[in-house]
This record gives sequence, structure tokens and C-alpha cells, in this order.
Amino acid sequence: MNNSATSIGEYLIERLLAHGVRHIFGVPGDYVLGFFKQLNDSPIAIINTCDEQGAGFAADAYARVSGLGAVCVTYCVGGLKVANTTAQAYAEKSPVIVISGAPGTDERAKNPLLHHKVRDFDTQFKVFEQLTVASTVLDDPETAFLEIDRVFAAALRYRRPVYIELPRDMVRRPGLASHRLPEPESSDPDALGEAVREAVALLNGASQPVILAGEELHRFGLQAMLTRLVEKTNLPVASTILGKSVFSESHPRYIGIYEGAVGREEVRDYVETSDCLLMLGALMTDMNLGIYTANLDPKRSIYVTSEKLSIHHHVYEQVLLADFVGALVAADIRRRTPQNAPHPRVSLDFQVHPGVPVTVRHLFQQLNAFIDDRTIVIAEPGDALFGGADLYIQGKTHFLSPAYYASLGFAVPAGLGAQMADSQLRPLILVGDGAFQMTGLELSTVVRYGLAPIVIVLNNRGYGTERPMADGSFNDVLDWHYSRLPALLRAGLGFAVDTEDELAAALKAARSHTESFCLLDVRLDPEDSSPALKRLTHSLARRVYSTPP
Amino acid sequence: MNNSATSIGEYLIERLLAHGVRHIFGVPGDYVLGFFKQLNDSPIAIINTCDEQGAGFAADAYARVSGLGAVCVTYCVGGLKVANTTAQAYAEKSPVIVISGAPGTDERAKNPLLHHKVRDFDTQFKVFEQLTVASTVLDDPETAFLEIDRVFAAALRYRRPVYIELPRDMVRRPGLASHRLPEPESSDPDALGEAVREAVALLNGASQPVILAGEELHRFGLQAMLTRLVEKTNLPVASTILGKSVFSESHPRYIGIYEGAVGREEVRDYVETSDCLLMLGALMTDMNLGIYTANLDPKRSIYVTSEKLSIHHHVYEQVLLADFVGALVAADIRRRTPQNAPHPRVSLDFQVHPGVPVTVRHLFQQLNAFIDDRTIVIAEPGDALFGGADLYIQGKTHFLSPAYYASLGFAVPAGLGAQMADSQLRPLILVGDGAFQMTGLELSTVVRYGLAPIVIVLNNRGYGTERPMADGSFNDVLDWHYSRLPALLRAGLGFAVDTEDELAAALKAARSHTESFCLLDVRLDPEDSSPALKRLTHSLARRVYSTPP
Repeated sequence: MNNSATSIGEYLIERLLAHGVRHIFGVPGDYVLGFFKQLNDSPIAIINTCDEQGAGFAADAYARVSGLGAVCVTYCVGGLKVANTTAQAYAEKSPVIVISGAPGTDERAKNPLLHHKVRDFDTQFKVFEQLTVASTVLDDPETAFLEIDRVFAAALRYRRPVYIELPRDMVRRPGLASHRLPEPESSDPDALGEAVREAVALLNGASQPVILAGEELHRFGLQAMLTRLVEKTNLPVASTILGKSVFSESHPRYIGIYEGAVGREEVRDYVETSDCLLMLGALMTDMNLGIYTANLDPKRSIYVTSEKLSIHHHVYEQVLLADFVGALVAADIRRRTPQNAPHPRVSLDFQVHPGVPVTVRHLFQQLNAFIDDRTIVIAEPGDALFGGADLYIQGKTHFLSPAYYASLGFAVPAGLGAQMADSQLRPLILVGDGAFQMTGLELSTVVRYGLAPIVIVLNNRGYGTERPMADGSFNDVLDWHYSRLPALLRAGLGFAVDTEDELAAALKAARSHTESFCLLDVRLDPEDSSPALKRLTHSLARRVYSTPP
Repeated sequence: MNNSATSIGEYLIERLLAHGVRHIFGVPGDYVLGFFKQLNDSPIAIINTCDEQGAGFAADAYARVSGLGAVCVTYCVGGLKVANTTAQAYAEKSPVIVISGAPGTDERAKNPLLHHKVRDFDTQFKVFEQLTVASTVLDDPETAFLEIDRVFAAALRYRRPVYIELPRDMVRRPGLASHRLPEPESSDPDALGEAVREAVALLNGASQPVILAGEELHRFGLQAMLTRLVEKTNLPVASTILGKSVFSESHPRYIGIYEGAVGREEVRDYVETSDCLLMLGALMTDMNLGIYTANLDPKRSIYVTSEKLSIHHHVYEQVLLADFVGALVAADIRRRTPQNAPHPRVSLDFQVHPGVPVTVRHLFQQLNAFIDDRTIVIAEPGDALFGGADLYIQGKTHFLSPAYYASLGFAVPAGLGAQMADSQLRPLILVGDGAFQMTGLELSTVVRYGLAPIVIVLNNRGYGTERPMADGSFNDVLDWHYSRLPALLRAGLGFAVDTEDELAAALKAARSHTESFCLLDVRLDPEDSSPALKRLTHSLARRVYSTPP
């Protein structure tokens, strides 16, 4: 063995570093121990979560904040625990490199029953083929470097997860060094030109053009470009719920979140009566569309994502999202004087009444006054998200939520990933009690690595989103004494919050306690919820059996 | 709609009840809420776990104890969280019915981006095809009942998990009633007769025949048949580690656990020098084989499982395990006088020295004296399993551990499943601190449903199995104050145990406290481990890079 040659494990680490990955989340196991040793000797910090699920969610959040994330686990018993988190990264376009150790190629002869094996040695690979945009088993030193390059390129091209399986006898094997990085994909200049000319003509001819900004602008790092486009043209901007915070909510051209009948009426009116809707990087999901209460007519729309560009009912091929937005910035789009576009009503005024029980509405009023531009709000699906949608986010991309795939258990580990990705940010984690009981103990990992999120448990003793749809004791959640968690973890501050003044006092204490986590157990009336959730569950309830009963 | 006809959801519930399923584990979500409502109105109790992972492990344990288990979750965000637990049930032959809600067939037209969708509507189905022995989507009322029958039959034939996807618009749709239950598979009488005659001749001609009993005897309910065979013939019996407790360890013919060089030398000698080894229902996994230190010669073996019957190097087809064991019981096998077979050394004598730190060895001595025939020992992979292997189990099937697939996080939720399956049993859960941090908070579910396991946390502040293989801070686990858990959950008793006398006092208190869980945080020296684990990690360490470095 030529020790000066780069080994397959070393090359993988090199590519992670080249793409800005400085932390990797995971849990070790015997099939991946050799690679953990290599990581341990590298500049990448290993962040050990309690469970692989937490590592998967943390890596997803890390990718959303910093552009690429990685999770490293052992074969099957680790890998299959991140099936769901990888599915979420796929659905929501978050580029996570999933690295799994595996039995050595030399151990697989005669198909023995090695521990952690499910059916065949390729079972886990076949599962991840369904959940990723590219996948590989690095079982050949001749092609290993090329394969690593190929799947990294796919992760970055589509902003989706990829799967790399590393048999343990390959970790220290030198790979074939002469390889060529794949050419980045580029737009067809003629198609791009024609598409931009058509779009500009439509925008310039319209009387009420609107931009609808979606999450892909964040994933592809195009927020600054969007701001330039808006400042040049004065076009008003709505965002989808998934795209919340891709455009600064304090910008005078921001009109609010569009989500059909679930969102605010004046935003809906303005967007749906637009004669030229420029949809940039917005996935047309049911949540983005307010459970299909949206009414967006393709005949009046320019629809651009990383996968598709259509104007009205025709499609342009081979035009990249970044190129198209960039060309719009450079194009001759008429600058407008602001019309009667709505603007979010933000009132930071509220009264704190001692002894008065906290309502959901009041909670979000206090939180609105609490957050600043160093806050990253991370909202769990449920009322944490729907109430959180009304928070007034001033920075860029300081609001994270899995608003489409909507897996519970995301928020606490995501806070871990987000703060690792940007230590200047302080996570404000909004999480229901049901979701907290899934992964909330990853606060252990928060303690271990000295992070300091503020965790708001919206404690309504149950699955609040489901109660209005179909209720039963199956929607109940045991009433933990959440504020006792610091005693279990030997760190952190816990607060039991029943009243408005207790909330104010706890938030004040949390602001100044930055050495470890603060957890606020905010005890809400189980019947209480945000207005947005009330509107949403009404739409959802009609679908419990799909067609109205 | 004909309301008197049985709906698809009702039929599914009927088949679960017919097979003795009285509890179903799961977490609700909107795509499965309609079926949860139906379950709620049925005699099946819904057991809500904190996270779907806990539900999956609980259903696995329930299946191992009672013959069939079921887990019910929502689409993708629930289903993919049980990918790993289903894989374990597959690998270890535990028949779990995985039921997932799904978008209605009427919602899938034009392939909309509904929440919880990964790539296509069949993504989850394709994943579970890899992890189950049969799978179906109940999207057609004409065939739904037949499909339910087909996958139930497969679960019971192979004792492996199956997947049923229930689109929400099908829950209340009547199915086609005229259906026929599949014929149960049967043995070819000629092949069976020939195989039994050959086996009997070999056993009768041997000077040192031994039975090696494996986990399939448990899965197929053949423990009593094995006991009859032994009592008739006086053949000595070893068990595999996966098969521990399928044969009563207090039986005079029991010789101990065979696991190659990892197990006890005298058992290894006796089994490996046998001139006729009758292996019944034992999977030849690496753990069962002591990481390939086993030396079992096919030329001297009769090897029978649910999937294969071979004698020496030839194979009989179409012979079922139960039929073969039953025929052996009826056959004319020579009764022997006991030879110099080993017998497990069980000493229940030990001294409790006040103030002396607890060692792993001492812990298991006290536990050996503690357990009785109402105890079900559930051991997490790691030293909980390897130390636990030396516990002296007197009943039948009172030892559960995922000793082959070896997923961490099993033990606490498994205790929940096991006690639900048989309320007469009290679980003694042996779990390392690393594994406890994955799923230990399912003690919340234990509290919610009034169960009373005793949980022994083997707290060595890390992944003890991995430290001897390759160490680094990635093997560390945060030192929780485990005995404070009752304050968080508002129930249970917690004990911090450092010394032998504290252990004795805590076990005494736990025996009499049967209203809720008792948790013993047994603080061990990180360098300490059982002799079996020391032998095992030595074998494993050589494989960190597959081939010795």
C-alpha cells in the first residue's frame, strides 16, 4: 500500500471540507469505526447525537444554513434510522451527504449472515435509492473518487440528499487519483435569452405584477440576487410558507406570506388578481397552496424552479434558476412606483397582564418583540409553524421549518445543526409537546457541545393539529414536567410558564442566560390555537377520509 | 355505500383480532386518522408511543411474546421512522404487521405535491418491499380482503414483517366479501418421511449427539415440542445466543449457550466434538457463530430451519420445521443415559459489601438472584446482552434481545410491548447508557399505560462495546442524572447506584414497587465489562478495517 496516496476515506473528507462542511453529525458503530477514526484525525468535528434520527435532522438544518450537511452512521441499524430524515431532505431540497459504513467487500463472500444485515447486502442501498438523488457504494478503488465527485455534484445540482456507502475495508485503500471533476451544468444561452425576453415583456406590460418567492432561492443562495431584482424594479414580493424569510420581511416591498385561504386575505387578493405572477423557486405543494385553496392561473404566471421553467403553458428547457434570476436582474425591467400593495401589519405593542393565562396569540406577540436579527426561528410543524408564520423575521433565512414534508421531531435537533452551522445565531425553537417527546432529548447533545438554544414547548397536552380533524385519546400526550429537564441533563434552565408575566420573566432570563439551553414549558389551553391553524385544520378535516363524509 | 357490508378498515381489524392482536402501537397523523378512529371504536387498544421508533420496537417485542404484533403510523413521516425497526423484525424473524395510512387514491390524480410525499406516491411502498416479506397497497376494494389475507399468511408462514398501505379513502369502503383464505403450506409427506428416517438413523448411531436450539423454535411456538423430544430421548441441548431461553435453563439436559470462542469453553468443546449435531431453527449468524470462531462441520450436522433442511451436504425440499420436529418426537429415537455433558454453573451465592463499587460481574450476580419465573429479561445489544447471556433463565422465552440485527434503542420500548403482550410478566430491562438515550424516554408511554418495568441502566458513560475496538471522544455519552427521570415524567422511582449495598437496596425497593417503573442508574467503571464482551470485542476489533491492520 502506497501510504502517500490519498485513501478513499481521506478523499471523502477532503471533498466535505472543500464544500464547507466543518461538522458531521452521527453515531458510531463497528462498521463505521475506521472512518470515525479518520474523521477524528481531520479538521471536521464529529457531533455525536443521542440517536441517529437527531443526527439526520441536525445535518438537514446544517445544510439549509450553510449549503451542505453530512451525517455519518453505521450500516442499517444506523442508516435506516435516517431514512425519514433523508426523505425530508429530499422533499424539501436540502443537500445532505449520507455516509454509511458497511461490511467490507472481503467479508461479503458467500453471503454470510453478518450482524446488522437485513435481507441482502444491498438492502440499505436499495432503500436509499428511493430517498436520494444519487447513491453509490464505494467498493472499487478505481472508481471511488469519481463516484464521490458524481454524487457530490448531484447533491449540489439538485440541492437534495445523496447516499455514500463505505465498506470498511475501503476506508484506508488508496483511490485512483487521476479523476476529473464533472462539468457544472449550464444554461442554453439561446433558450435563456428567449425566456428572459418573454418574461420581461410580460412584466413590463402588466399592471399588477408580483413576485412569489420560494424556498429554492434560499437553497441556491439567490436571496441577494432577489433583493437586487426588487430594488431595481420595485416589484412587490410575497413569499410561500416554505420560503418564509428568503426575502427580508422588513423590506418595504414585502407584502406577506401567500398560502391561499389559509393566509391573510389581503395577500391572497393581491396575488390572485395579479396579471403577471413571477414565481421563483416555489414548489407547488399542498401547504404552499393552502391545501389547494390557492387560485393561481398558469395563464398569468411565469413559473421558474431548479427543475422547470414555464411561461403560461409552454416550457423552456435547459435554463437554470440562477441564470434566469441573474438575467432578470440585468434585464431592462421597468421600475414602478409602489401601488396599493399590502404590507404585513406588525405591531410590537402588547400588554403583559400579571396572572392572566398565556394564549397562543399572546405567546407570539411576546416572541415577536423578543426576536432580533441574531435569532434563527426554527418551527416544528403544527401550531409552532402556523403561529410562527406570523413572526416578523428581519434578517435573511432566519426561519426554518419543514413546512412541506412536515416530519415531527425536526426542531430540537435542527437547532443543534443550525447553531453549529453559524455560531453567531441563537436558535429560538418552537415545538409542540408531541414533537418534543420525539427528539427533545437531543438537548443532551446541545449540552455536550455547549450550545444555547431557547426552546419554547407549546404544551397543550396533545396533537393540537389533529384534535379538530378527528379526536380521541390517541391525540393525547403525557404531561411531562418539561422544566425539570435541566436536572436530568445537569445543565440548562427550565421555566414553567402559565401566565403572561411568567412568560415575560422567563424570556428576559433566557435572553441573558447564554451559557446553555433555556426551556420554557408554556402551558396552553388545549382548545386554543392560532387563527391560521384554525383555518388550516378546517381544510384538512374535510379530507380525513379524503372525500367529505 | 352499503353500510352493512364490512369495510376494508373493519376487515383489517377483524383479521388482527383473529390472530390475537389486542394492542396496536403507533402515532397518529392526518392520513391515518380515519383508521385510528376505527381502531378506537374496536376492541384493539391503541398504544401511543412518544415516537414511531418506539412503536416499531414495541410491536416487535409484542410479536415475539404473543405471536403477532402490529404498528400503525401515518404516511412517510411515520412509516419511514419504522424502517429500521421493521428491518430488525425481518432479520430476526418477528411477525409485525406494519400498517401505514396514505393519501387517498382520489387525491393522487395528476401527482400533486401532497405533504409527507417524498418522490412519488409509491416511494414508501418501494422502501418496505426491501424490508418485509410481503407488501400491499389496499387501493382496490375488489381485492383488498384477498390482499390482507395474503400478507397475513406470509407474515405467519415466514414469521417476518409485512407492509399494508391503506389510502384514507379506502378505510370505510366496503370490500368484496367473497374471498378465500389461502391454503396453509404443508410438507411433502415422502420428503418428510425420508428426512426423518435419515436423521433418526444418524442420531441413533452417534456417540455424542447434541441439539443446538435456535430462535425459530420460539417464533414458531415449538418450545413444548422441543421439551417433549428431549424428555423422550435425553439428548443434551445447547442454545444459540439468539435462542437463549427457548429451552429451560434449569432443565437437567441443558448444557449452556454455544457461541464459538465467545461462549464457555466446555460448551464449545462438547458441541464441536459432537458426531451428530441437530441444529433446530438456528440462524447461522455471525453472533450465533461467535464471529466465525465457531467450528461446526456440515458433515456431522442436521440443519433445519423454516427455510431449509439439510443433512450433511444434501437438501430436502418442502419439509416444514414444525412437521420435522413433530415427526422426531414421534420417531423411534434411542433414549440415552446422560453422558458427561456440561451443565451451566449457576451460583446464586454472593456477598454484598457495603461501600464497594458495583462491577459488571457483581451486577449480574445480584440480578441472577433477583429474577424469578415472572421476569422477562430484555437485553439491549452490548454488555447488557453479553452479561445478560449468563443470567439463568428458568421459564420459557423469558429472554428477549436483538442479538443478530443488534439495533440499539430496542430494550425500553420492547419492555412496553412485552408487558402489553403478557401482563403477568414484569420486564427487567438491561440497557446501556448509549442505547437508553435513544429511546429511554418511552418510559413516558410506560407511565401513560400503567406498566411497571425495572430498568437497569448500565452507565459507563459511553459505547462500551466500541471502546476496545477503536476509541475516541465519539464513544462518549453525556452523563445524565438518570435517576431524576421520575421528576420529569411525574411517576416512577429512580435510584442512583454506585455500591453493592445500594444495588441490593434498590433492587429490594423495586421488587415491592409495582405501580410504576423503577430505574436504577448503575454507575460502572468505563473500563469494566463482562468476560464475554472482552472476548467478543477482541474478535471484532480485528475487523475495524475488515482485514487486520
